[in-house]
Amino acid sequence: METMTNAITIEKSKTSKIHDVDFENLSFGSTYTDHMLVCDYVDGAWQTPKIIPYQPITLEPSAKIFHYGQSIFEGMKAYKDEAGKAWLFRPLENHKRLNKSAERLAIPELPESFFIEGLTTLLQLEKDWIPETPGSSLYIRPFILASGTGFHASPADAYKFIIACAPSGSYFSGKVRVLIEEKYSRSANGGVGYAKAGGNYAGQFYPTQLAIEKGYNQVIWTDDNNHEYIEEAGAMNIFARINDTLITGPTSDRILDGITRKSILEIAKDEGIDTEVRNITVNEVVQAAKDGTLKEMFGAGTAAVISPIAGFGYKGVDYDLPELSESYATRLKKRITDIQYNRAEDKFGWRYEV
Amino acid sequence: METMTNAITIEKSKTSKIHDVDFENLSFGSTYTDHMLVCDYVDGAWQTPKIIPYQPITLEPSAKIFHYGQSIFEGMKAYKDEAGKAWLFRPLENHKRLNKSAERLAIPELPESFFIEGLTTLLQLEKDWIPETPGSSLYIRPFILASGTGFHASPADAYKFIIACAPSGSYFSGKVRVLIEEKYSRSANGGVGYAKAGGNYAGQFYPTQLAIEKGYNQVIWTDDNNHEYIEEAGAMNIFARINDTLITGPTSDRILDGITRKSILEIAKDEGIDTEVRNITVNEVVQAAKDGTLKEMFGAGTAAVISPIAGFGYKGVDYDLPELSESYATRLKKRITDIQYNRAEDKFGWRYEV
Repeated sequence: METMTNAITIEKSKTSKIHDVDFENLSFGSTYTDHMLVCDYVDGAWQTPKIIPYQPITLEPSAKIFHYGQSIFEGMKAYKDEAGKAWLFRPLENHKRLNKSAERLAIPELPESFFIEGLTTLLQLEKDWIPETPGSSLYIRPFILASGTGFHASPADAYKFIIACAPSGSYFSGKVRVLIEEKYSRSANGGVGYAKAGGNYAGQFYPTQLAIEKGYNQVIWTDDNNHEYIEEAGAMNIFARINDTLITGPTSDRILDGITRKSILEIAKDEGIDTEVRNITVNEVVQAAKDGTLKEMFGAGTAAVISPIAGFGYKGVDYDLPELSESYATRLKKRITDIQYNRAEDKFGWRYEV
Repeated sequence: METMTNAITIEKSKTSKIHDVDFENLSFGSTYTDHMLVCDYVDGAWQTPKIIPYQPITLEPSAKIFHYGQSIFEGMKAYKDEAGKAWLFRPLENHKRLNKSAERLAIPELPESFFIEGLTTLLQLEKDWIPETPGSSLYIRPFILASGTGFHASPADAYKFIIACAPSGSYFSGKVRVLIEEKYSRSANGGVGYAKAGGNYAGQFYPTQLAIEKGYNQVIWTDDNNHEYIEEAGAMNIFARINDTLITGPTSDRILDGITRKSILEIAKDEGIDTEVRNITVNEVVQAAKDGTLKEMFGAGTAAVISPIAGFGYKGVDYDLPELSESYATRLKKRITDIQYNRAEDKFGWRYEV
């Protein structure tokens, strides 16, 4: 682990916006805290991060972020427990994945200490911004953008690593209806689908808009070859429960290695739930929906935690999933959020005190 | 065609940088002119464009361009003829493609008049910046970025359309050696490969770096399924000449509908060259290289015009292409640049006077 040779500098905001915020009625990711962390990559090295008042970013029109989509991000949350202590959930996993994304997008890797010390220093300063309302949390967005300039299609020579925070309520309200995609796709074999690269998300907007126009909330992504396998749900990993087995697809270069996904798998095993990590075909899901063995489907990700699916559309037919009194979704969401909010024992060692 | 209700406003730069520029030794896309065009999409409509001094752009840290790669661009050139007149090449095609890209990236379409009037007004102001040195031109970069804010993964509600210009020399110097890709890929069926979306380019950087480390200049992209078909060359379309037939792949949702590509096809037909638009397999190219029937390969695109390929690597073997005294690449490049620089008759009606 590289360590920082210089301490992070902090320039405090002169005034706080915190009293303008209605913490009881937070939307998702649209209100920002007083400070942000900024760390520049110039002259071949990441410079010492600094914390400054939350403020606009100024870039040259020729900055490569504007032209070539060279950007990556992470999504994290800070949780406050009843005693007022602040917690993160597996932050080292976010750092590792940020660097996996960085490699694929030809962005210089960020030292672990810059990420973790930067994050914890920022959160200590912004601790009052972590909501105490049930179901709310401080959403944290670390991201790297190519600030280096030039119209030549090649990696930039300068980058900005930024962490911004947004006190947030739920990502979705209630269950979602999804459309299994038959035409569009999210990622290619040998592509960047496994990375949290900006471009992976913009490509989903149009097909998702078409699905919304048809009355669905999200798209279930399938492989780009034959649309035969179920891969992701919107910007989440997807789980299906057939009979009492919980199934999710394997990670690959097309599928994001979700931290919620792998935590849910471990918790499910710990709960004695049979799990399978294997390709899920559209056919088996449709068949299981028809014969009643498809008990549940849900998306899993940091922003939405677990997002239960009410039903899905496929080839013009709608399939409803049953309302269960004892769903895996509810049980697993309670287990994971109890760990995140320090309401239960953390036998996996996932909590990280700020 | 929508027309603008208000005239474009022009705020002139107080000083010019033009005398600092060495027009005899221009690199590609790294020196920018005195002015830029900016047009904002807010409140559900594109506002009247304005021309302002070339200057940095200021955006919120939560602007969606930084997180979700929602951006598209075009590449164009302005050419100066011997009489000092300035010309564009098929600019309406760029506008059409910009809007095709916009649709796929869930960006509001830009009216034709905003594009064409904005572009010509800017170029009239920047006319002195169009190089007169042979092989040089004014590279023009129209682009749209998502300026609207929020960490919710959904389309932005505000955008900026910008045109910036850079007097430029050649994109590549001399012939390139390319590596036929066996692992990575550029685009998916049902994806955004046909759009000039920022994210399509960032995803190419890492595989291209790996190819450069092996001694090649560019990657030849193949399909993501079996890496069986040749699709694009770096950020260009690709042509192969087997015996005397000029072949290029069909456009699809994976392949960019290049303006140089389709112009070259028309010129080749006009020159009496046999052309085929069909899938090209890696196997046939390797086989043709072995038996000597592969006479030429070249990339075609606005930035590089025609970029001849000296040889390619595939599965650890290098194949050299012959040096021809009468290559299609040279002949077609002369035909198209003669039209672009107003040195020859424009029977196709492609030139557009600024």
